[in-house]
Amino acid sequence: MPDKKGLLIVNTGDGKGKSTAAFGTLLRAWGRGMKICVVQFIKSETGAWGEIKAAKKMGIEWLTTGDGFTWLSKDMDETTARAQHGWKLAQEKISSGNYDLILLDEFTYPLHYGWLDTAEVLDWLKENRPPNLHLIITGRSAPEALIQAADLVTEMKLVKHPYEQGLKAQAGIEF
Amino acid sequence: MPDKKGLLIVNTGDGKGKSTAAFGTLLRAWGRGMKICVVQFIKSETGAWGEIKAAKKMGIEWLTTGDGFTWLSKDMDETTARAQHGWKLAQEKISSGNYDLILLDEFTYPLHYGWLDTAEVLDWLKENRPPNLHLIITGRSAPEALIQAADLVTEMKLVKHPYEQGLKAQAGIEF
Repeated sequence: MPDKKGLLIVNTGDGKGKSTAAFGTLLRAWGRGMKICVVQFIKSETGAWGEIKAAKKMGIEWLTTGDGFTWLSKDMDETTARAQHGWKLAQEKISSGNYDLILLDEFTYPLHYGWLDTAEVLDWLKENRPPNLHLIITGRSAPEALIQAADLVTEMKLVKHPYEQGLKAQAGIEF
Repeated sequence: MPDKKGLLIVNTGDGKGKSTAAFGTLLRAWGRGMKICVVQFIKSETGAWGEIKAAKKMGIEWLTTGDGFTWLSKDMDETTARAQHGWKLAQEKISSGNYDLILLDEFTYPLHYGWLDTAEVLDWLKENRPPNLHLIITGRSAPEALIQAADLVTEMKLVKHPYEQGLKAQAGIEF
């Protein structure tokens, strides 16, 4: 077995911390001078998220392709088009060979909802992912085939959440 | 209910991503210009961990008090002394009022192994934690009383790990 190999990492489950753990891995990789790119599916392109502000300050490339919480959208054509556009961007970044770590944030949703074909995505990755590139995919409902293909899979399980106690989401902590 | 309230957050479980998710929250908070301090229990003081390199680059205060993986140590007196020293540092930082977010990384171990008294720690926090301070505690085996006291608890559950496939830990990803 080689000492160095790019890992395919999946953070899934219903709990908090899927994207957040990926951002922590980014921080760690950035600390070691790795070249990093993020393609963010689903989330709003205009939100002043703490992680986007941080990436800007850190000089980490950050692409967004989502249009808000569109898995509830009625306009599925646009949603599908955006997911496919995002995947095209991701493919360019992955095959470029310019990165040590790429995060496809919330990428399970386009797969789960069928806006992208999971088997095609996995086949493409098998052919085109540089062997040392670490790839992190986050989001709920990771398809079984993705879990099978992954090297490291963590399920984040919600035990207790402040919303249950009537507290609002806290800036800088949850977004 | 107030809109702004410091959360007591616990990341626990057997999976990866407990500390890593906390580092992601740090990144997010740092992106918003929050004042942050980390007190790291257990882990080596001399390791060139990616997260420590990152914190240095980001100007985040980072204190380490551990002496390696000492929950297996025979020398429990030193281990207890170090845990208590770390808790004293943490208390100073918490009560100072100088921070928006403090991470007590791997802090469940001193509680779980009884090097610190969980009830005393929680009582002290109740009296002394500034109301807007977010406090994150990570580590396996979080005591039940800590989970009761927390606002947000996530359990990280291992689904699949590359060690099982004979792969070594990857620098920048896992440390």
